[in-house]
Amino acid sequence: MPRLVMKFGGTSVADLSRIRNAAEKVKREVERGFDVAVVVSAMSGKTNELVGWVREVSPFYDAREYDAVVSSGENVTAGLMALTLQEIGVPARSWQGWQVPLKTTSAHGAARIEDIDTTLLAQKFEEGLHAVIAGFQGISPEGRITTLGRGGSDTSAVAFAAALGAERCDIYTDVDGVYTTDPRITQKARKLERIAYEEMLELASLGAKVLQTRSVELAMRYNVRLQVLSSFSDEPGTLVCAEEEIMESNVVSGVAYSRDEAKVTLIGVADRPGVAAGIFGPLAEAGINVDMIVQNISEDGLTDMTFSCPVDEVARARKALDAALADGKLAFREVVTDTETAKVSIVGIGMRSHSGVAQKMFATLAAEGVNIKVITTSEIKVSVLIDRKYMELAVQALHDAFGLEKAA
Amino acid sequence: MPRLVMKFGGTSVADLSRIRNAAEKVKREVERGFDVAVVVSAMSGKTNELVGWVREVSPFYDAREYDAVVSSGENVTAGLMALTLQEIGVPARSWQGWQVPLKTTSAHGAARIEDIDTTLLAQKFEEGLHAVIAGFQGISPEGRITTLGRGGSDTSAVAFAAALGAERCDIYTDVDGVYTTDPRITQKARKLERIAYEEMLELASLGAKVLQTRSVELAMRYNVRLQVLSSFSDEPGTLVCAEEEIMESNVVSGVAYSRDEAKVTLIGVADRPGVAAGIFGPLAEAGINVDMIVQNISEDGLTDMTFSCPVDEVARARKALDAALADGKLAFREVVTDTETAKVSIVGIGMRSHSGVAQKMFATLAAEGVNIKVITTSEIKVSVLIDRKYMELAVQALHDAFGLEKAA
Repeated sequence: MPRLVMKFGGTSVADLSRIRNAAEKVKREVERGFDVAVVVSAMSGKTNELVGWVREVSPFYDAREYDAVVSSGENVTAGLMALTLQEIGVPARSWQGWQVPLKTTSAHGAARIEDIDTTLLAQKFEEGLHAVIAGFQGISPEGRITTLGRGGSDTSAVAFAAALGAERCDIYTDVDGVYTTDPRITQKARKLERIAYEEMLELASLGAKVLQTRSVELAMRYNVRLQVLSSFSDEPGTLVCAEEEIMESNVVSGVAYSRDEAKVTLIGVADRPGVAAGIFGPLAEAGINVDMIVQNISEDGLTDMTFSCPVDEVARARKALDAALADGKLAFREVVTDTETAKVSIVGIGMRSHSGVAQKMFATLAAEGVNIKVITTSEIKVSVLIDRKYMELAVQALHDAFGLEKAA
Repeated sequence: MPRLVMKFGGTSVADLSRIRNAAEKVKREVERGFDVAVVVSAMSGKTNELVGWVREVSPFYDAREYDAVVSSGENVTAGLMALTLQEIGVPARSWQGWQVPLKTTSAHGAARIEDIDTTLLAQKFEEGLHAVIAGFQGISPEGRITTLGRGGSDTSAVAFAAALGAERCDIYTDVDGVYTTDPRITQKARKLERIAYEEMLELASLGAKVLQTRSVELAMRYNVRLQVLSSFSDEPGTLVCAEEEIMESNVVSGVAYSRDEAKVTLIGVADRPGVAAGIFGPLAEAGINVDMIVQNISEDGLTDMTFSCPVDEVARARKALDAALADGKLAFREVVTDTETAKVSIVGIGMRSHSGVAQKMFATLAAEGVNIKVITTSEIKVSVLIDRKYMELAVQALHDAFGLEKAA
C-alpha cells in the first residue's frame, strides 16, 4: 500500500480536542488507502517549559540530560494520538525514537539523523497497524536519547518519508500554505499551489517561518514531496517539490522581507588581502549573524566595507569591531551604523531563464522613490536593503510589478 | 564500594527547589562513600494529569499506550535530578527503564519485574557515575514500555536495591517514619526505630499508607533493608527489616484503624456447603472489597453471615446480593447493614510468643464500654469492628494499655 507521512506541530496537538481533530485527518487518509506514519510534536508550550526547567537547574547543562528531559513531551502526544486513533477506529501504535530505531549522531541537542531502520514499522504496517512516531528524537550509538534541535519534528517527518518511500510528507501547521508574500502586507497575497525546494529554502532563510530550513534541505536531497497545510481547515496547502513537477510558474514566486535589519559601514579600511577575514572573523566570534556584504571600490588603498545584521546585534558588532581596532588586528577610520533599514527580496526559479528581473525590481523601487542601499543576488533571488519606512510600499509594489496576484 | 538506593516520591521532587533539596541528601550519602542509585517518581500531580488525559481520550484505553504516556513524568524528573546532582558536584546520569534494562512481564499498567540487568549500572559505578533511575517503569519482552502500577516507584526502588545488593533502600517521603499509631489521634504516638516486614505489611494493608504493600513484600522476599524517612528533615526514619534485626520490641508494635467500615449481615441463610461461595462470588464480581467475615452458629439449618466492607460500597453490595436472591442463586431472609462502624487493629510480631494479647485487647475495650461487633485475628494481628464514635477512644486506650509510648 502507498505510504504517507503526516506531521502535526505543537499547535495542532495542543490539547485533546485538537489531537482528535488531527486524528480525523489521519483517518481520512487511511480510508483513502494509505499506510500512515503520523509524526507528532509536543503539545505547544510543553517543550519550552521543559527547556526552562533544564536551564534553571543548570545554565551549562549536560546536553545528554537535556535531551532525556525535553524529548518527553513528544512521547506524551504520540501515546495520546495512538489512543485517539484507536478510539475512532484506526488501528495504531506509538513509537518512540529508540523503539523504531531512528539512529542519530551523538551531537546531543542538535543530533543529525544517521539511519532509520524501518523493518519493524513495515512489519506493523503489514499487520494493519498505522504508526504514530514521537518527533524530534532519536537514539545515539551509546544508547542515549538524542534530539534534533528545535523544530526538529519537521526533520523527523521528512526523514521518515524518505526512509519509508512515502508518496508525500504532509506538514500540518497553523498556516494554510506558502504565500506569494505576507498577507498582512497585501491582501493580494496568493497561496501558492506549488513551490520548488530551492525557492522554499530561500524563503525560509529570508524569514518565512513555515518550515524548518533543515527539513526542506533534507526533502530536496531525498526528493520527498512536502505539503504544507493547515490543521484547522480542509483546504489543500502548498506542495514543495522538485522544479520538474512545476509545469508553469511566474518568473518570481514570492516577495519576502525582513524588518529589523541594520546596515553597518566601516569607512577607511586598508584594502589588502585578508581584510575581509580581519573584519568578519571577530564578528563571527561574537556570534553576529552577518547577512549581506558589500565592498566599495577602493581609492588610495582605502576601501569601505558594508554589511547588514539584525538590529539587536549592532551594539555587540560595534563592540567586537572596536576591540579588534584596539588590538591592532584591524585598521579602519570609523564605523557608521544605520538601524532604520529593512530587507526586501524577490525569489523565483524563473530568474534562471529570464533576464532583466533584477533591473525590473530596481526600476519598480525607483518609480516609488525608494532608495536602495545594498544589493545582493543569488541565482534565484535578489535582495535589497532599503529604509524601513518604505518596506510595506516596496513589497506591495514588487508584488504588483511581477503579477503575483495571479497564477502563471 | 557499598551501594545505596535512595527513592524520592512525588512530593519530594515536586519542583526544582525540592529536587535540589533531595540532591543534597544524595550528595551527603555519596560523601559517606556509597555508590548511589537514586529512584525518582514524577513531580506530584504529573502522573494524575497524564492518567486523566488517557482516560478522557478513551475510557477503555490500550494499556500499552497508557504506559507510554504515563511513564513520561518519571523521565523528566530523572533527567532534572541528574542535572541537579551534576550542578552540585556529584557525577551522575539518568536511566530510563528500557536503558537499564529493567525487564518486566507484558501486563501493561501493572507489570511485574522479571529481571534487572545491572551490568551497565555497575560499569558506570566503576567509572564514578552515580545513577538516577526513572521509577515505576520497565520494558516488556516485546520492547514496549511498561509501568508497575500506581506507587510502583517504591517497588522499583526495592527491586534495584535487591539487584544491586544495596546495603539499604531509603524511601524518602512526606512523613518521617512509621508510628505506633496515627499522631493525629494521640500525641503519645511514637516513631518506631525498627519494624519487621510482617508488621509493616499488616499496617500497610490496614491503611497506613507509608509504603506500597508490594514493595514491602519484595523487600521481605529479598531481605532488603528499607528505611522510611522524610525529605523535609534530617531525622533518621524507621527501618523496615527482618525480625532477627530487631533485638527488643513491644509485644504490640502498633495500633491501626480504618474509619469508614460498614457491617453487613445476612440473616437466615440456608447453612449448606457452598453457601459462602454463593454469597462472596456475586460480591467479588461486583468488585466489593470484603474484609472481615464471620459466620454465626447455625440453628435449624439456618445461619447468619456477617462481613465488613468500605461504607461507600454498601449500596453496591446490597444490589449484588438482592440480584443473587432474585436469580435464586442465593437464599436468605434479610440483609441488615450498619454503616456506623470502624475497624481497630493491634499488630505485633511479639504476639506469636505471647499469649493473652487478644484477651488484653478485649478487656481494655470492655473497660471503656466499647462493644465489639466482629473479631478477626491473624498470627500477628487482632482486628475488631466497633461503633465509629468509639474509634479514637479505642485507639488511645489500646495505645496506653500496651505501653506503646515507650520503646521496649
